Amino acid sequence: MAVNLEAPGELLAVPGVRLATGAAAIKRPGRDDLTILIFDPGTTVAGVFTQSAFRAAPVLLAQERIRRGDVRALLINSGNANAATGEAGLADARVLCEAAAEVLDIPAESVLPFSTGVIGERLPVAKMTPVIGVMPDGLSETNWPAAAGAIMTTDTVAKACSLTVELEGQSVTITGMAKGSGMIRPDMATMLAYVCTDARVSQTCLNALVKVAADRSFNRITVDGDTSTNDAFILAATGRAEHGIIDSPESETGRALLAGIESVARTLAQAIVRDGEGVTKFVTVAVQGGMDEAECLKVAYTIAESPLVKTALFASDPNWGRLAMAIGRAGVRDLDPAGVQVWFDDVQVMRDGLMDPDYAEAAGAGVLAQAEFTIRVMLGRGDAAAEIWTSDLSYEYVRINAEYRT
Amino acid sequence: MAVNLEAPGELLAVPGVRLATGAAAIKRPGRDDLTILIFDPGTTVAGVFTQSAFRAAPVLLAQERIRRGDVRALLINSGNANAATGEAGLADARVLCEAAAEVLDIPAESVLPFSTGVIGERLPVAKMTPVIGVMPDGLSETNWPAAAGAIMTTDTVAKACSLTVELEGQSVTITGMAKGSGMIRPDMATMLAYVCTDARVSQTCLNALVKVAADRSFNRITVDGDTSTNDAFILAATGRAEHGIIDSPESETGRALLAGIESVARTLAQAIVRDGEGVTKFVTVAVQGGMDEAECLKVAYTIAESPLVKTALFASDPNWGRLAMAIGRAGVRDLDPAGVQVWFDDVQVMRDGLMDPDYAEAAGAGVLAQAEFTIRVMLGRGDAAAEIWTSDLSYEYVRINAEYRT
Repeated sequence: MAVNLEAPGELLAVPGVRLATGAAAIKRPGRDDLTILIFDPGTTVAGVFTQSAFRAAPVLLAQERIRRGDVRALLINSGNANAATGEAGLADARVLCEAAAEVLDIPAESVLPFSTGVIGERLPVAKMTPVIGVMPDGLSETNWPAAAGAIMTTDTVAKACSLTVELEGQSVTITGMAKGSGMIRPDMATMLAYVCTDARVSQTCLNALVKVAADRSFNRITVDGDTSTNDAFILAATGRAEHGIIDSPESETGRALLAGIESVARTLAQAIVRDGEGVTKFVTVAVQGGMDEAECLKVAYTIAESPLVKTALFASDPNWGRLAMAIGRAGVRDLDPAGVQVWFDDVQVMRDGLMDPDYAEAAGAGVLAQAEFTIRVMLGRGDAAAEIWTSDLSYEYVRINAEYRT
Repeated sequence: MAVNLEAPGELLAVPGVRLATGAAAIKRPGRDDLTILIFDPGTTVAGVFTQSAFRAAPVLLAQERIRRGDVRALLINSGNANAATGEAGLADARVLCEAAAEVLDIPAESVLPFSTGVIGERLPVAKMTPVIGVMPDGLSETNWPAAAGAIMTTDTVAKACSLTVELEGQSVTITGMAKGSGMIRPDMATMLAYVCTDARVSQTCLNALVKVAADRSFNRITVDGDTSTNDAFILAATGRAEHGIIDSPESETGRALLAGIESVARTLAQAIVRDGEGVTKFVTVAVQGGMDEAECLKVAYTIAESPLVKTALFASDPNWGRLAMAIGRAGVRDLDPAGVQVWFDDVQVMRDGLMDPDYAEAAGAGVLAQAEFTIRVMLGRGDAAAEIWTSDLSYEYVRINAEYRT
């Protein structure tokens, strides 16, 4: 059902990053649901996390430990979010990190925990620790495909990609993976995304890179407008490449690395929408001509999250009246409808706030019949622009979410 | 399919208000789609309108004329919203008001136009004017049931009710009607509601009453979070009753009248949710213990508009993890999860931010199996409270909105 989304191609090993997976039957038996990433000493790690007031136990612990620094490993489980579990959930996360730290021979505080799945249930710690105990035997730099599969929950396709960038004549690798399909309106970064590189980057610079990359990728997608309790996006740089250390995202190498990270992060973010629950359309909403980026984003999200717009997208119905409705209610101060233009791909449907006299419904319907297209809105009041990616709202979304957990 | 909603009971005539309906085949033949209300001279009229930037032509004209005062008649059509129609739409609305004014023998500026239905199409003025020409023959104080039917669009049940209040020993009548089923998240008042009374009320006082009544009724409902381009709520007081004139909503008679108007408006607003598109559940979301009303409303609307919560309601699934998710992302500053309590009717499901240890899923499922129940949230940080009414999200909602207009 995923829209224009294939299984990952070749995933390049990142020197200094080894991965292993294991099966602990957390939600159900017969699939890998545990993943460990271990980084070589000297790796810098940065992350962004959900802004939810109900942040899950692993998020609280990972945030605390990433601030402290010296991160050496990530311990990820799917099938259970360890969210709304209070002190007991925090203790569970600590115990699991200790189990991993012991077999990896690193300090417990250097392990970051991540969980996704059902909210409000305790983790089955007793089932998980023995599996963690044997996982280090399987650690390998080539295990990205298995890891991308093990972090999935309701995802139907694994999400991962690789590329290389040239920094001072050196080839540097960037490989990332993500999971997520529902509860998708990240408010910092989406539910579990990991991007690793062998670039040499200072901690301050990496902190800046992860924020910028998140803002231009995971923070630009919405499936259902619902923000998870467990969102996290982690960027790790092992420093094994031999270019000069990157100290600023503004430097030449900093910009080149950011471009590569952004490209990987955007591919992963878009993959999450393409594999969104019940999704049949992948839609780019591009809003231009705003006074600032914030009002462009307001209009884009109001369109992207309107149930009436989303059901029209599902029906391939070029119902521009619903776009007028959404733009009108987006809360843009003193918006003059007479300045508004709207296109479906290259077909102009609204001109100066009214239906374009040259618009033919068949042309609009032709665009919307595609699995992938762009809704472009010009507000006509400034030079700012913003672009986000979203999906339609189908019977299947209702079915998946009405049946999940029951 | 409407939830606990029957056809209107007896509708009391309001002295000084006469109504007529007509059939102009605006969208399709064979049903009444035009309504006229005419008020006796001396009637005061107040209204609130959608905040959409894409306000429809009739809304712009009605707002302008209601500010001027001396309103004598309302001309309402269903089947076509006359929205996103620009200057041509304004001219159409003026022409129709003139046609009504001529046969009613009143000034054209004293007629307020209202339209609901499809966005972006011109009104069939040539079909409508001859029908308007003969409608005055049918004017009668007892035509409320026909009028409540004629203003419907996708509504499945007419929405109207009556009550009387005692003011200084005089019995005063309040009768109201409304329409609306989708695109329901009023941002002032909902799509076409009219409440009339024979009370004697000053213009200033009536302006205050309509705002307070809207805030406590139509501005407290959401079906799909989408705000219409045509929302309007009109309150008319003919002054035919013989109590002393009401000058302030704070006076004893002002408070008594407000209570009556609020009761009628709330019944109509709830009827709109009960008859919401594809609705199978009528749910009250009550948020208490906030620092102010605004944050209580933020939490209530985030719950009520979350697709994940709404699909769980449809499935009768007491999925409190999704409530935690919604409360967590509502944007309440420094919310402490440990202070949060949640109930389904009288069944406490969350205690101090965690699952209540005494909670049994069967008890929660029992509440959600009902067609009507309350989700109550205590934030534990203040004394403010707010209550709104909403619905679930069903296959049927997707079907109706994917098929409408195609």
